[in-house]
Amino acid sequence: MKYELYLGIDGGGSKCKARLELENGELLGEGVSGPANPVHNSELAFQSIVEASVIALTNAGFSPDVLGRVNTVMGLAGVNIPKYHAIVEAWKHPFGNCLITTDLHIACLGAHAGSEGAIVITGTGSSAFTSINGVQTMLGGHGFPLGDKAGGAWLGWKALSAVLDGFDGLMSRNDLFERVCNQLQISSSNELVTQALHFLPRDYAAIAPLVLDAAKAGDEIAISIMNEGAHYLQSLLNRLHELQPKRISVIGGLASRWLDWLPSETKSFLNSPLCSPEYGAVALAKQQFKDPQ
Amino acid sequence: MKYELYLGIDGGGSKCKARLELENGELLGEGVSGPANPVHNSELAFQSIVEASVIALTNAGFSPDVLGRVNTVMGLAGVNIPKYHAIVEAWKHPFGNCLITTDLHIACLGAHAGSEGAIVITGTGSSAFTSINGVQTMLGGHGFPLGDKAGGAWLGWKALSAVLDGFDGLMSRNDLFERVCNQLQISSSNELVTQALHFLPRDYAAIAPLVLDAAKAGDEIAISIMNEGAHYLQSLLNRLHELQPKRISVIGGLASRWLDWLPSETKSFLNSPLCSPEYGAVALAKQQFKDPQ
Repeated sequence: MKYELYLGIDGGGSKCKARLELENGELLGEGVSGPANPVHNSELAFQSIVEASVIALTNAGFSPDVLGRVNTVMGLAGVNIPKYHAIVEAWKHPFGNCLITTDLHIACLGAHAGSEGAIVITGTGSSAFTSINGVQTMLGGHGFPLGDKAGGAWLGWKALSAVLDGFDGLMSRNDLFERVCNQLQISSSNELVTQALHFLPRDYAAIAPLVLDAAKAGDEIAISIMNEGAHYLQSLLNRLHELQPKRISVIGGLASRWLDWLPSETKSFLNSPLCSPEYGAVALAKQQFKDPQ
Repeated sequence: MKYELYLGIDGGGSKCKARLELENGELLGEGVSGPANPVHNSELAFQSIVEASVIALTNAGFSPDVLGRVNTVMGLAGVNIPKYHAIVEAWKHPFGNCLITTDLHIACLGAHAGSEGAIVITGTGSSAFTSINGVQTMLGGHGFPLGDKAGGAWLGWKALSAVLDGFDGLMSRNDLFERVCNQLQISSSNELVTQALHFLPRDYAAIAPLVLDAAKAGDEIAISIMNEGAHYLQSLLNRLHELQPKRISVIGGLASRWLDWLPSETKSFLNSPLCSPEYGAVALAKQQFKDPQ
């Protein structure tokens, strides 16, 4: 074959995405499969990575054994930790060339259409990342509830804590209180605590939209929670700005909602995210594996 | 025998205390044994309760089979929850008369020398309790990290969160930062997160003294953490005050440290705690089991 194939993998906790391109940027096929977080379950992650890749190849009209000549970049959560990097590196993957990097790195490259820059991600958690002259820096993202301030799980958790104060008569039983009690179908602090006992970050994050909506409707407690979160995001963004990256974007499921809460001074140095993480992975694959001549 | 014996049990997560009195208030003997929290381990709790009681009897010169005619009140954590109350009630205890109540109830009776009143407890966790005309109310104490604000675990957790911000360059690496890093022997956020991954509330609480000391030394972040905790305690105390109990006390391992952080308006309606929880349990045993004539 005369042409090279470039595959970008974005492995996340709930799904895995694959993107197959030609060197000239032509999109040949895409694939989506299940969870691919090697920290949670590496075997499942490997299975999802292969599945999404085969779907992308099939969509492009190739047979699965073409995997063996594909230039691949996998962006995966947790591989900044040596233990998980070693697990992924030890995997006998089916790809030709293959580079392992973090989900943050490919998300950053994607947001800036393949170039270096900085990002703040706010989804279930929160974190920040920069790549400047090849030097990568991660900020935040230390895990809920110690870190990940301004993430969806943090927002939901702050809301539940306020609802407990409401039940205790320490705060007014306001709009946010009503919204949370309705969604969780609870009428006492004991019911709340019992239900939250087995909450995972995503369960807390499912309450986050109530905080956003209540704040928009003028609820004072919701507004104070949003202000606290915005203050944290602002300090992350200011810190990134000090490092002088070429571009700074806010991405993730809550990104657009948070923008309303940032001061215009902060917003003035933000740039719109341009492309997806899997696009960023493909771009890195080209930088890494493209034949120099 | 012509005299009645009254036994008070204070069962806690780390130890169990027993106090044996005559009706006239004469202290006959005391006993201390191991953990007695029925929520954590009910069999171990029952064993500790019997052990502390036998020690108290032995110290008083009685043989263990005198247990069968002792009027006992056991104050235990978690028995406000029906499930754990049922477990303790199903226990074939060796006592004569026996009443089961909460650790909060006997602590409140103890703080007010056997009379009704209200308490705020700040130790590893935080909670509040009132008993007014026989009606008992519990506030707070919903468990760390959703509740238990201003408890030792909460203080330590706030400190760790601030230290992570210090490592990320979002906060100055101040006095509190140095104290925490020294105590935990850490020099990076990864080391902190790895260590904290398996932290129990008591491990977070072990960091609380650093916050108190740094705040006293003028550290701004420690002061803001203390102010947030004091604000919560103040709202708990104001809520109790509205209910008009006869006396209000702050008890627990951190009580004296928090008093400095409360406004004089709040301190003006506080009363010094008078006696121990096991004293409160004995007082309740007398009220409950004393022959009416």
